[in-house]
Amino acid sequence: MVTVGIIGAGRIGKVHVQSISNNVPGAKIKTLADPFMNDETAKWAEGMGIEKVTKDYKDIINDPEIQAVLICSSTDTHAPISIEAINAGKHVFCEKPIDHDVNKIHEVIDALKGKNLKYQVGFNRRFDHNFRAVQAAVAAGKVGDPQIIKITSRDPEPPSPAYVAVSGGMFMDMTIHDFDMARFLAGCDAEEVYVQSAVLVDPEIGKAGDVDTAVITIKMKNGALVVIDNCRKSVYGYDQRAEVFGSKGMAAITNDAQSNVTVSNQDGVTGEKPLFFFLERYMQAYSDEIKSFIDAVENDTETAVGIEDGLKPVLMAMAANLSVKEHRPVKLSEVE
Amino acid sequence: MVTVGIIGAGRIGKVHVQSISNNVPGAKIKTLADPFMNDETAKWAEGMGIEKVTKDYKDIINDPEIQAVLICSSTDTHAPISIEAINAGKHVFCEKPIDHDVNKIHEVIDALKGKNLKYQVGFNRRFDHNFRAVQAAVAAGKVGDPQIIKITSRDPEPPSPAYVAVSGGMFMDMTIHDFDMARFLAGCDAEEVYVQSAVLVDPEIGKAGDVDTAVITIKMKNGALVVIDNCRKSVYGYDQRAEVFGSKGMAAITNDAQSNVTVSNQDGVTGEKPLFFFLERYMQAYSDEIKSFIDAVENDTETAVGIEDGLKPVLMAMAANLSVKEHRPVKLSEVE
Amino acid sequence: MVTVGIIGAGRIGKVHVQSISNNVPGAKIKTLADPFMNDETAKWAEGMGIEKVTKDYKDIINDPEIQAVLICSSTDTHAPISIEAINAGKHVFCEKPIDHDVNKIHEVIDALKGKNLKYQVGFNRRFDHNFRAVQAAVAAGKVGDPQIIKITSRDPEPPSPAYVAVSGGMFMDMTIHDFDMARFLAGCDAEEVYVQSAVLVDPEIGKAGDVDTAVITIKMKNGALVVIDNCRKSVYGYDQRAEVFGSKGMAAITNDAQSNVTVSNQDGVTGEKPLFFFLERYMQAYSDEIKSFIDAVENDTETAVGIEDGLKPVLMAMAANLSVKEHRPVKLSEVE
Amino acid sequence: MVTVGIIGAGRIGKVHVQSISNNVPGAKIKTLADPFMNDETAKWAEGMGIEKVTKDYKDIINDPEIQAVLICSSTDTHAPISIEAINAGKHVFCEKPIDHDVNKIHEVIDALKGKNLKYQVGFNRRFDHNFRAVQAAVAAGKVGDPQIIKITSRDPEPPSPAYVAVSGGMFMDMTIHDFDMARFLAGCDAEEVYVQSAVLVDPEIGKAGDVDTAVITIKMKNGALVVIDNCRKSVYGYDQRAEVFGSKGMAAITNDAQSNVTVSNQDGVTGEKPLFFFLERYMQAYSDEIKSFIDAVENDTETAVGIEDGLKPVLMAMAANLSVKEHRPVKLSEVE
Repeated sequence: MVTVGIIGAGRIGKVHVQSISNNVPGAKIKTLADPFMNDETAKWAEGMGIEKVTKDYKDIINDPEIQAVLICSSTDTHAPISIEAINAGKHVFCEKPIDHDVNKIHEVIDALKGKNLKYQVGFNRRFDHNFRAVQAAVAAGKVGDPQIIKITSRDPEPPSPAYVAVSGGMFMDMTIHDFDMARFLAGCDAEEVYVQSAVLVDPEIGKAGDVDTAVITIKMKNGALVVIDNCRKSVYGYDQRAEVFGSKGMAAITNDAQSNVTVSNQDGVTGEKPLFFFLERYMQAYSDEIKSFIDAVENDTETAVGIEDGLKPVLMAMAANLSVKEHRPVKLSEVE
Repeated sequence: MVTVGIIGAGRIGKVHVQSISNNVPGAKIKTLADPFMNDETAKWAEGMGIEKVTKDYKDIINDPEIQAVLICSSTDTHAPISIEAINAGKHVFCEKPIDHDVNKIHEVIDALKGKNLKYQVGFNRRFDHNFRAVQAAVAAGKVGDPQIIKITSRDPEPPSPAYVAVSGGMFMDMTIHDFDMARFLAGCDAEEVYVQSAVLVDPEIGKAGDVDTAVITIKMKNGALVVIDNCRKSVYGYDQRAEVFGSKGMAAITNDAQSNVTVSNQDGVTGEKPLFFFLERYMQAYSDEIKSFIDAVENDTETAVGIEDGLKPVLMAMAANLSVKEHRPVKLSEVE
Repeated sequence: MVTVGIIGAGRIGKVHVQSISNNVPGAKIKTLADPFMNDETAKWAEGMGIEKVTKDYKDIINDPEIQAVLICSSTDTHAPISIEAINAGKHVFCEKPIDHDVNKIHEVIDALKGKNLKYQVGFNRRFDHNFRAVQAAVAAGKVGDPQIIKITSRDPEPPSPAYVAVSGGMFMDMTIHDFDMARFLAGCDAEEVYVQSAVLVDPEIGKAGDVDTAVITIKMKNGALVVIDNCRKSVYGYDQRAEVFGSKGMAAITNDAQSNVTVSNQDGVTGEKPLFFFLERYMQAYSDEIKSFIDAVENDTETAVGIEDGLKPVLMAMAANLSVKEHRPVKLSEVE
Repeated sequence: MVTVGIIGAGRIGKVHVQSISNNVPGAKIKTLADPFMNDETAKWAEGMGIEKVTKDYKDIINDPEIQAVLICSSTDTHAPISIEAINAGKHVFCEKPIDHDVNKIHEVIDALKGKNLKYQVGFNRRFDHNFRAVQAAVAAGKVGDPQIIKITSRDPEPPSPAYVAVSGGMFMDMTIHDFDMARFLAGCDAEEVYVQSAVLVDPEIGKAGDVDTAVITIKMKNGALVVIDNCRKSVYGYDQRAEVFGSKGMAAITNDAQSNVTVSNQDGVTGEKPLFFFLERYMQAYSDEIKSFIDAVENDTETAVGIEDGLKPVLMAMAANLSVKEHRPVKLSEVE
């Protein structure tokens, strides 16, 4: 039984609390910390069987009983808290991205050196039943050598322009998952990124210096060509698809819906639209990523999504940003 | 090149004219006969390259150049014209049903005895790409021994009560295709039929002594259980599906639509409804059945749908009618 | 917070323990009883946060703190324990079927009279996301008046002949869910049942006096025709589909799979087979039925599946058995 | 009735002969010309009802009875024969591409000026039932403003390196259809093209100076982003899909197969792979494009795919080639 502390009681922190309480029998949450901890959250935490709540995350860092920390606080705190937790000898699960600044990620990498501590980054989609199945098909050789990889990722509704201004922009806060997926499905790193982008959803996003629609072409080190298409707003809901085409065939996945009911009438045959957003689509994945992390801690094995997996997509996002700025293909080596 | 005469220039007669003109290079239509032949039809026939039109089908029977006759006239004339054509030494393709009265069908069987003439019955669905594929899967052993066979057959719009009164009723004019399909997919004959039926579409059909909705259970001689569901009115169009479940798996087919486009929006994901009715769904099948008939004539091989295949579904329809009347399962041996 | 006792720690009892622990925040399991309670189960129960385990279900009946009882013991004990629990003032959730003998079910009905106690029967499929969606479409009028209802229900592997001998047979242990589904989807009771059945899977099942394959036709009181097809063995897994066809359209559902991945290669386009069996397919439904029961207890509302819903499918199974025996359609009024 | 001459009796010439004979009642082929005309082809042509065959296409140009010419000869002859036919006062249907050299296309444009002659280019996919349906959905406003357009186009087998050397390369001989489709679906012209390409199928294609796999990003003048993915070899057959995503939804199409049969067994649920190649997939489209051309001639209306539609994709292919050469995004204005 792994004793866990969770730092950050926002939306994703609460998701992990629920996952662990309901679906991760090997872990027990001792403490939940949040600078804005209030009575409501404290009561909810008690109902979830959490022993202690606090406003000060150091209560977790300094608790010798706590073996593993989940960092779900704001992005700018991910790296420094990671380092504090590592130095306190704790295993770390950190939400993505570790940081927008690769130097800070390298500091975390340095902190981990020589310590036998587990570090997992929150790329939850790798644990989704569909993405996992397409990757398994590729890994099993069913498509042969990957040649073209297509990833569609569209959100149901755009963030506020205010959020975009601090999030690092679309490539850093949204596409980062797709960059990770490209590496996961191709089984290797990226070599070059080119972005064709536009502001088609909300001019305010453009004024905030970001884009809201993009087609991103990536050349992977194994020669596979990846294309990611993103949009901040899809009226039919969260669109999360992928396909890997290769020398022996193609593996493809599509969206999930609440049910598979279809209604046929004079207007056609109508099924349900995709599940609304990430909380609906990826709840099973959130559970499974934490299970996987706890398993790695318990069995002293590699985490499924290590610190390098946290670094690489940030580099890809940086290359994407540079590609937009200079309107040209950008090699990863230029930003590393 | 087989020289053909077509008797009957109604809807289905015209379908066969077009099929032969466009898609059956091995056949040439010399004469088209119809008691109601008029200028419009005559002109149309000329445009299709037909040499001669006539009101008297005997012009076809008596023409020594004509090798094969397609009988597309009203059902009550199918058997007598078949016999005339056979006696004139012509191969016959006859629309279904040959007759509502099995005695008349037996007269045709008797007429064929000892003559090397081809006789094919117009069960076009056997030539449909989907039904053919499901049957091929069964024949290739992909489902093992058939255990449960399901056939859905629903028309987009009911016939007039007047038509029902002369058609022999739903089992004889509509389900007859499904009875044939049951034999085609099971690969054997029926043993017993039970009908649960209702008048749910049009009370006038009930007043005419017929039903418009039915679930028909059939026990086949190889032990497979067949269920056919019929309705005279399906608002989303012609519904023509089948599945064969067996010891090694299941083969299933569904409807065709005009295109496979789907539109996703806030209301769901909508595809096109099935093709409207038999002319839309089965045009390829109508062509292929005539090609098959002409091939049998040219190569002196068995027709794909012989005279026995014309008889058996009529017996099944009779058993179905008796089942409705006496509200009990009826053995085929009771009506043979 | 409703305090619950669970009687029976077999497969389905454990499913409910897990559901409540993980997904029903409004309930707390105090006691788990099973005549074969052993150390392993006791330890597992402790891990699930259950306060007490016992071999004697009376420890639950007699515990004044326990408000609701889940009866997951063998079928023959369902009715007597239901009555004991009711007399002790407890709400009851009872697995299906309540009993094979309608008289015993009537005794439970009598016991409930005049008491404001909730009684829910374990027809879990009503809570499955797909079946719920098709029923919701029907209830919303999207198909108009139901005319033909089709239910496919095939198990991945047959039970042992020994099980069949005590289970009450296929109609009582397996089709009972489909009988319930017929009522759920049609929105009314059955009037008449006809069965065409066979032994096609395992001759030993036949020797035990049961069938393993059946097509069941039902006439509902609202005129809709229902057809259920059952087989004890489907090599591609648990096949659980339904469609409701009516005057305004059709609502249909199909199976769920572990993922929606497809692999395209020279052999075709292959997707995953359906989820293996009920534990895989219906875990969400098991959770939701208990949530619904607890809600009914907490809010003093009708249970979603009441005692009458437990009685009616048993009558339908009896009619089905009589239909097999006498090979004729059987009215429900004959067995009531 | 339009009298037609066909120049070129290769594969596509024969397709048009068959289409007109079988499915275009408004046209009559008088003459078929091919420099390699032989007895076999002559006999076949006679069987198709063609009056005259010749080795000299000038027999068509100089025949005053012939109103319309179909140019199906080798690409290098498209432009000069077009001009000869135009100067002879004939309507022209010309296979794609008109030429690899835009100057030659401009000469055809000049030749057409001031003459009321119809000119149609053979972009057959615009007439395919699926592509037509997705375009119709876009044109009907069902997706709102197009934002992301995805076109997948993969051939079942690569051409010989020898062919590639003379075809103008992949962008000119294969992607040219997708460039046309981008314009058709977006409803406007392209502004900029970027290509990420590779030689992953056959190194000999690389040695011949071409690529065999590519992801092409296009910015359209209305702001929509288009991505085309191409591969010269898809083991599961011809892959021809598209989707248009916009402010109000998405319209998408997928492949057609020979039938929709699926076989379910312990290995999964398997459907047929896509139709093998363009002759299988687009036969209906080939027919309909000629019907449309003949209609335009008969009714003196605009052709559905005019000379400008023939020019623009060639410019896009030139931009694509330049993008590969200089590894950068290329504006259409650079090649016009």
